[in-house]
Amino acid sequence: MSCALCDGDGGLVVARTPQFRVVRVVEGEEAQRFPAFYRLIWNAHVAEFSDLCVTDRHACMDAVTEIERALRSLLAPTKVNLASLGNVVPHLHWHVIARFEGDSHFPAPIWAPAQREAVPALARPLETVDAAIAQVLSG
Amino acid sequence: MSCALCDGDGGLVVARTPQFRVVRVVEGEEAQRFPAFYRLIWNAHVAEFSDLCVTDRHACMDAVTEIERALRSLLAPTKVNLASLGNVVPHLHWHVIARFEGDSHFPAPIWAPAQREAVPALARPLETVDAAIAQVLSG
Repeated sequence: MSCALCDGDGGLVVARTPQFRVVRVVEGEEAQRFPAFYRLIWNAHVAEFSDLCVTDRHACMDAVTEIERALRSLLAPTKVNLASLGNVVPHLHWHVIARFEGDSHFPAPIWAPAQREAVPALARPLETVDAAIAQVLSG
Repeated sequence: MSCALCDGDGGLVVARTPQFRVVRVVEGEEAQRFPAFYRLIWNAHVAEFSDLCVTDRHACMDAVTEIERALRSLLAPTKVNLASLGNVVPHLHWHVIARFEGDSHFPAPIWAPAQREAVPALARPLETVDAAIAQVLSG
């Protein structure tokens, strides 16, 4: 069985470690509407979070936390959304998304129907966020 | 400012510790469509996961993992979905949802439009799942 997250990086890689990579979502409607949208993708093909051993689970969420902190400190979003769904691509990945009051879906989840047409203005260029994540996470 | 998760339990409490409670979602359309839908709600009012200290973050995700494991071992879902959104109620809570191929939204997220009318048949009564979660998590 082919897996999109085994066969490719899954986005613009901003940090890479032996265990996982962090990508920024840069393609599609989601990237337009939610520009500060990152994913932590576990390198090994496991489907569920509970497939990881405790050390890996803690390392995974410590990294998710660092991505969240970078978004909060640089972009001051209204809320950060975290999710590990994987119904379509059952290869462990965490969505880390900066949400802003007035973005196209707020306060609904990004997977709900859009409530308006709007693209949030960001306080800093995404390359600055990418670099901050790379600095704290790159092995 | 009033907070729904400070003022009430937020669901049917199945486990309670000094740090958090686990509830089963029993009201509304979500509960009908996704019967094995649990939430871990942090007791203290914090908005973001990264507001927790590292010890609390690990304890939080260890508990989320135990809920996921109970769902997997007792109900064998197609996938488990984990999410901490909080756009409407910014009080830290984790959704832990058993998803089944053929449920009303699968493979879309539960927040997307429904794809069909369907309620999954569960392998065991929810009270059995509640009891398993209570046994592993109650302090």
